[in-house]
Amino acid sequence: MPDDADSSADSSADSSAGKRPARRLGGRAARKAIRSAPLAADKRAIRPGLEGGRYQPLTGHDIEKIHHAALDVLEQIGLADAIPSCRDLVLAAGGSLSPQGRLLFPRALVEDTIASAARNFPLYARDPRHDMEPWGDKVYFGTAGAAVHMIDARTGAYRESTSADLYDLARMADALDNIHFFQRMVVCRDLPDPLEMDFNTCYAAVSGTSKHVGASWVHPDHLAVSMEMLHAIAGGEKQWRDRPFVSMSCCFVVPPLKFAEDACSTMELGVREGMPILLLAAGQAGATSPAALAGAVVQEVAEVLAGLVYVNLIKPSHPCIFGTWPFVSDLRTGAMSGGSGEQALLMSACAQMARFYDLTGGVCAGMSDAKMPDAQAGYEKGYNHALVGNSGANLVYESAGMHASLLGACLESMVIDNDSIGGALRTVAGIRVDDESISVEAMRDVCTTGPGHYLGHAQTLDLMQSEYAYPVIGCRASPKEWVEQGSPTIIDRAEKKVAEILTTHFPRHISDELDADLRDRFPVRLDRARMMPT
Amino acid sequence: MPDDADSSADSSADSSAGKRPARRLGGRAARKAIRSAPLAADKRAIRPGLEGGRYQPLTGHDIEKIHHAALDVLEQIGLADAIPSCRDLVLAAGGSLSPQGRLLFPRALVEDTIASAARNFPLYARDPRHDMEPWGDKVYFGTAGAAVHMIDARTGAYRESTSADLYDLARMADALDNIHFFQRMVVCRDLPDPLEMDFNTCYAAVSGTSKHVGASWVHPDHLAVSMEMLHAIAGGEKQWRDRPFVSMSCCFVVPPLKFAEDACSTMELGVREGMPILLLAAGQAGATSPAALAGAVVQEVAEVLAGLVYVNLIKPSHPCIFGTWPFVSDLRTGAMSGGSGEQALLMSACAQMARFYDLTGGVCAGMSDAKMPDAQAGYEKGYNHALVGNSGANLVYESAGMHASLLGACLESMVIDNDSIGGALRTVAGIRVDDESISVEAMRDVCTTGPGHYLGHAQTLDLMQSEYAYPVIGCRASPKEWVEQGSPTIIDRAEKKVAEILTTHFPRHISDELDADLRDRFPVRLDRARMMPT
Repeated sequence: MPDDADSSADSSADSSAGKRPARRLGGRAARKAIRSAPLAADKRAIRPGLEGGRYQPLTGHDIEKIHHAALDVLEQIGLADAIPSCRDLVLAAGGSLSPQGRLLFPRALVEDTIASAARNFPLYARDPRHDMEPWGDKVYFGTAGAAVHMIDARTGAYRESTSADLYDLARMADALDNIHFFQRMVVCRDLPDPLEMDFNTCYAAVSGTSKHVGASWVHPDHLAVSMEMLHAIAGGEKQWRDRPFVSMSCCFVVPPLKFAEDACSTMELGVREGMPILLLAAGQAGATSPAALAGAVVQEVAEVLAGLVYVNLIKPSHPCIFGTWPFVSDLRTGAMSGGSGEQALLMSACAQMARFYDLTGGVCAGMSDAKMPDAQAGYEKGYNHALVGNSGANLVYESAGMHASLLGACLESMVIDNDSIGGALRTVAGIRVDDESISVEAMRDVCTTGPGHYLGHAQTLDLMQSEYAYPVIGCRASPKEWVEQGSPTIIDRAEKKVAEILTTHFPRHISDELDADLRDRFPVRLDRARMMPT
Repeated sequence: MPDDADSSADSSADSSAGKRPARRLGGRAARKAIRSAPLAADKRAIRPGLEGGRYQPLTGHDIEKIHHAALDVLEQIGLADAIPSCRDLVLAAGGSLSPQGRLLFPRALVEDTIASAARNFPLYARDPRHDMEPWGDKVYFGTAGAAVHMIDARTGAYRESTSADLYDLARMADALDNIHFFQRMVVCRDLPDPLEMDFNTCYAAVSGTSKHVGASWVHPDHLAVSMEMLHAIAGGEKQWRDRPFVSMSCCFVVPPLKFAEDACSTMELGVREGMPILLLAAGQAGATSPAALAGAVVQEVAEVLAGLVYVNLIKPSHPCIFGTWPFVSDLRTGAMSGGSGEQALLMSACAQMARFYDLTGGVCAGMSDAKMPDAQAGYEKGYNHALVGNSGANLVYESAGMHASLLGACLESMVIDNDSIGGALRTVAGIRVDDESISVEAMRDVCTTGPGHYLGHAQTLDLMQSEYAYPVIGCRASPKEWVEQGSPTIIDRAEKKVAEILTTHFPRHISDELDADLRDRFPVRLDRARMMPT
């Protein structure tokens, strides 16, 4: 009943395949079997790092105008509340203070920073197969969020999220092909101590996936303890610095245009520790950034450029992700709204700005305002995934599992959203137009000497997996077949997949011995029994 | 609980507004009330005919290559089964027959036809407010389909569709702002007689909406009877010919590259009767068109160009819609799949081809493979609406209400899809970038002398409706508010809206007197009692 690409591909166009007795395949059947066997990852219709850029909401003129406005904002309005170390660095580099004490950034400093900032750096994963090269037009989808609830997909009931939930969400991301990296999605509300919370957030995420991880820390001391653990996992500080597999999601700014003190101190430590920084400016249009969409983009670009100057003054060419995250307010209530068309426009425009600077862009898409995985969640995620993916955003955060404008996370939605992202990725892959694909000869065959249809044509069989992507749980059965299967809802199918993953998929890239050592040295709170099959 | 733009806009940022005693509004409140009052239609964030074109899956080179391949196909492979009138027209214009009797179209004939074909013609509606100008990059969303079932949104149960269902679907389309035209969605299975079915399909659609209608007829005789009715409704033949408010959806071709006899005869009559023709070529990639996406586009372009030549030889510059509808097969089963990423690519590419020819393009987007309005239906519709809308398709058919790869239609999905289309339309509207919208002065106000946020800023209040679109039933409440409302599901909210529309909305553009006259003269089968409030 759930369509499964790998298992069903083998039985395509041969409805009796499931009952086929074991025997040596004849010529045509053998060719078909070869063609429908799983392709090498780099030949499949969808994969990490496909190249976007075919959706461009901003014109070149628009981009220039936004860029110059951001420079004006930094030069004339500047940022408030710089911590002394930040202020001293910027003043020494030619900055100044306004009469109100706001830190002003001269255009030349910003432009020089853009020119010399790190570009084309990989984001590493514990498993090198999951390393990412997030530059140019390449697109990767992943998670993020700081939800405080887990959602029951069937009832819509909300409960407080825990470190065990975070570990399970990481395992889901690890197992789902269209989720390319994992940034923490929920707050560990079982851990009231802030240090324990930050440390265990990092521990649960890193334990649950061998893909690249993003995490955050509210105080430098919390990061310092986590760094000791990351060095141990990497096999030493040098190994960590060679392949840092965790990046810091850092809200260094409180929009509009104010530095956040503790976040800045933590960021300074992260830079010194060689951790890539997601420079995150998350204003909310109409509340903490201008209501005009263009203005919301200008403000977030200005804020992230300020962060980029700051980091590059601490350490030139340190890897930074250009994290312009302009959110939307529903202006009728002032509440955040994450699923709107305006949201897709804002994030796509920001992806274009990062592309304009030739910097690694990180935006978000796929949050929903719906409280549970329903049709509203679907369309809000669908149009955001597709447009932001096609805009060429290098890293698309918050793309799976999130509901209620980021207040809740849902395991079943991870599975459902994985298929939505798969559809979006297929559009990012685009249409191959060449002498073979235009198919004039196939048409000539079929229409003039052939059977009048393409079902068994060699081209059709050849393209079955390289031209087409298949959903994991998305259902394409006819109504009749669906009824025969017992009319399984998408929640039925998602629950089944979640159970399958969570009962069987336990990443083992941290050895039992190392884990025991970590538990001796650090305040690990995740129950060891949760981390192995029962 | 359902967010309603008109009613809630008034109470924005003032949560007690609902309980506010009647009194004269003070200065700030008065300004706010003025700003949040409904805007004129042409000032709202979304409206019919917004200009797309910012999503371009094909490069200019790709488009040229597809165009030339289509000309090759028409010149070298041609179409089978032309009826004598068609064959004579094309042969007289320079065409020829292949040894197998296929009708070949010389390049010059096709190119001359493209140059002289009708462009920039309106599609009229009974109510002139709903007239469409579907050319250039302008985008309109509407319905279509030939589903044989109606779907219970709550249970997923399927039952046979009837003429009363079609009338109700038309009324839904009439009442929903983001559905701009209505082409018949379901087959009237209560009417086994083909003439009665075709006639009543037209009658139910035209009675149910004053927006532009699309219908189809399987035989010229059925069209002839319907034309008498349409003349009567228009007030005479001249009035009909001045403002034809019904277009013919005509499958004049059976892919691959074969004419359909009865459809061609019916089309010839439609052309003579002044009815705009949707030239529909609906191949299915991997079954009746090539599996390579580029090839599927080439074949459908070739087929529609053949139809365009044919119509223009019957009557030069007759209004035609370039109806390239390449569908997708799931190659594992051969079944049609309407909700995939491949589908969005195919239709967007076809929209670009129509734009290349500067002809009115009609494609489809928003079908779903899901059997009911669930998360899968949502994301499949969401990414298809957004990408195809942004590609600049002039007319987007099948965009609301359709499930199970077009086998079923659902009233509640009309309401849900209306919101998905609304989100897509907001992205089509794009981002206004000008001196005012970049908001440098608003940032200066807020950050240097103002309150540090934009909530009450004049710009925020001014832009509340012109910059933002609001869903009709999409829920943006917090989880807490949602629970307080009784945790209404999207199906609860959609059912309520459907009931509200169907119990109150009865278009009256056909007078009672005229309707009685139609019932005297024609085999009207829709119960008159169904057409008025109970």
